[in-house]
Amino acid sequence: MKATVLYGPGDVRYESVDDPKIIRPTDAIIKLSATCICGSDLWPYRGLQPKDGPAHMGHEYCGVVIEVGSAVRTIRPGQFVVGSFCLSDNTCPHCKFGFQSSCEQREFMSGAQAPYARVALADGTLVATREMPGRDLIPHLLATSDVLGTGWYAADAANVKQGSVVAVVGDGAVGLMGVLAAKEMGAERIIAMSRHKTRQNLAREFGATDIVVERGLEGIARVKELTRGVGADSVLECVGTQEAMSQALECTRPGGTIGYVGVPHGVTFDGQALFFGQRRMLGGPAPVRRFLPDLMDRVLNGRIQPGKVFDLTLPIDQVAEGYKAMDQRRAIKTMLTV
Amino acid sequence: MKATVLYGPGDVRYESVDDPKIIRPTDAIIKLSATCICGSDLWPYRGLQPKDGPAHMGHEYCGVVIEVGSAVRTIRPGQFVVGSFCLSDNTCPHCKFGFQSSCEQREFMSGAQAPYARVALADGTLVATREMPGRDLIPHLLATSDVLGTGWYAADAANVKQGSVVAVVGDGAVGLMGVLAAKEMGAERIIAMSRHKTRQNLAREFGATDIVVERGLEGIARVKELTRGVGADSVLECVGTQEAMSQALECTRPGGTIGYVGVPHGVTFDGQALFFGQRRMLGGPAPVRRFLPDLMDRVLNGRIQPGKVFDLTLPIDQVAEGYKAMDQRRAIKTMLTV
Repeated sequence: MKATVLYGPGDVRYESVDDPKIIRPTDAIIKLSATCICGSDLWPYRGLQPKDGPAHMGHEYCGVVIEVGSAVRTIRPGQFVVGSFCLSDNTCPHCKFGFQSSCEQREFMSGAQAPYARVALADGTLVATREMPGRDLIPHLLATSDVLGTGWYAADAANVKQGSVVAVVGDGAVGLMGVLAAKEMGAERIIAMSRHKTRQNLAREFGATDIVVERGLEGIARVKELTRGVGADSVLECVGTQEAMSQALECTRPGGTIGYVGVPHGVTFDGQALFFGQRRMLGGPAPVRRFLPDLMDRVLNGRIQPGKVFDLTLPIDQVAEGYKAMDQRRAIKTMLTV
Repeated sequence: MKATVLYGPGDVRYESVDDPKIIRPTDAIIKLSATCICGSDLWPYRGLQPKDGPAHMGHEYCGVVIEVGSAVRTIRPGQFVVGSFCLSDNTCPHCKFGFQSSCEQREFMSGAQAPYARVALADGTLVATREMPGRDLIPHLLATSDVLGTGWYAADAANVKQGSVVAVVGDGAVGLMGVLAAKEMGAERIIAMSRHKTRQNLAREFGATDIVVERGLEGIARVKELTRGVGADSVLECVGTQEAMSQALECTRPGGTIGYVGVPHGVTFDGQALFFGQRRMLGGPAPVRRFLPDLMDRVLNGRIQPGKVFDLTLPIDQVAEGYKAMDQRRAIKTMLTV
């Protein structure tokens, strides 16, 4: 088959590779219904995260199981499944605590920007639907695999509750999903920080009540102003830069919480500043598996439509253009049809 | 009157100073029943936290109100009161959220190692008892002012609950109070990290179920071993050094929480390491005022005896010896009688 391989900064190719096959008895092979490009794929694409040699890209996926290993017990060929970008056994103590992204057997998914993919730890990782979903639901189900699951975790980690005042730093796809998650969790006020009209519109559609276009110190001042000088109860940091993290910290009220899901690049914290700032923090790779059954239900019930975050859809052989469009911020997020 | 003044590293004097007086209409003057030396007083005493000129020391206090300013409404002369080391109005939004240590009007108490002291924001800061407590209760009530309140906050911030597995890093007075707090909050297992026999004994008396004498990597390995490789649900960091913080982070399970109350000195965090470690963190100066009524009730009811943490009592004119004994770790915590 052909698949997506990143050779170096800006160099994405759709080229022939070996077909995926069962390597361990706990594996499954799926035929993808659709796949997509993640904001985090842009770090290596931009050369900001060196890779050793060519990398098989893609970690967001849903599709139909076509083969399972001999030790797979609950997942069966023919099922439609969604899985997290974190592969987990869902039985170890960390998984039991709901932190499947720290599973003792954790692996990170790769190679999903392709027509077929191998999913390790299939029983722990994959969640099957009862019926084959309609084509119209595929973008929304695909979104649960990472981008919605990650935005959801940002809101969960940031302790969003009924009536919370929330700010979201980052208007990428994850930030927009954070807005949706905060809305679903009952936030009373959701301040989205965004300078881009199309993203502002989508944020409003997902539930943002206020838009802050300012950044840095001005952005912080504006959030403070909107919260009567107090700061937000919960701030979702969905970027991963020092600037975004500082903004998140300053927009949170003392005793409030920051959920940070942007993979930090060059971010450091001064202990004494954190101490006197008195903000609660939780971040990390999202334990999407914890939320997946619930998120899939919300999609299948038609309650949420997270797939609206895909504003560009391309056939997978144009994957290179999909990266380019996201890199140039022409697209929020690219879905790839297979 | 005479009071305690720190002139420089190791140079504590008990010498004549002006009597405290009402400066603002919200002030009160109290006659101290007892006072004490805090572990945090040792930072400047050891020269690890430079001071500009001589400093009036002491921020833990309880005693009888002898005068109040014209704007004080609820506190009256003759009342026995305890206050936090953080002075707060208890009415601003941060106070309402229970983070009085980030009060919009926050000041830090000073000058309490003396027979009389001025307390700013008296109505917000001070909690009065209904009756004059007996002499035997004074050490326990004094402890609620900071050392117990801070240990309590460490456990609260670390999310200790019924059935939690807890580890406490630091066997100073605050760490020992953290053990007591975790016990009161229903922790099932409390691992105290201590190499000192007298502190181990006190930790056990306060509720520790396990003692870990190892430090650094060996200490972490031992905590992991005691928690079946998982790590603790809640870790109380009660020191403030990089070593202690790293130990706390590594002893916590993913998704678990670190409550850090040791004022960080030279502590930094790498964003990516924190992210992938996936630990929840909350620290800061303890909002003791939030807990004070409850803690005082527990003392007055005889349920807890936090004053046992004072293993040296000196008349206040021997305050210099009190500092020396703590600096040399001959004493856990020194109470000063006035």
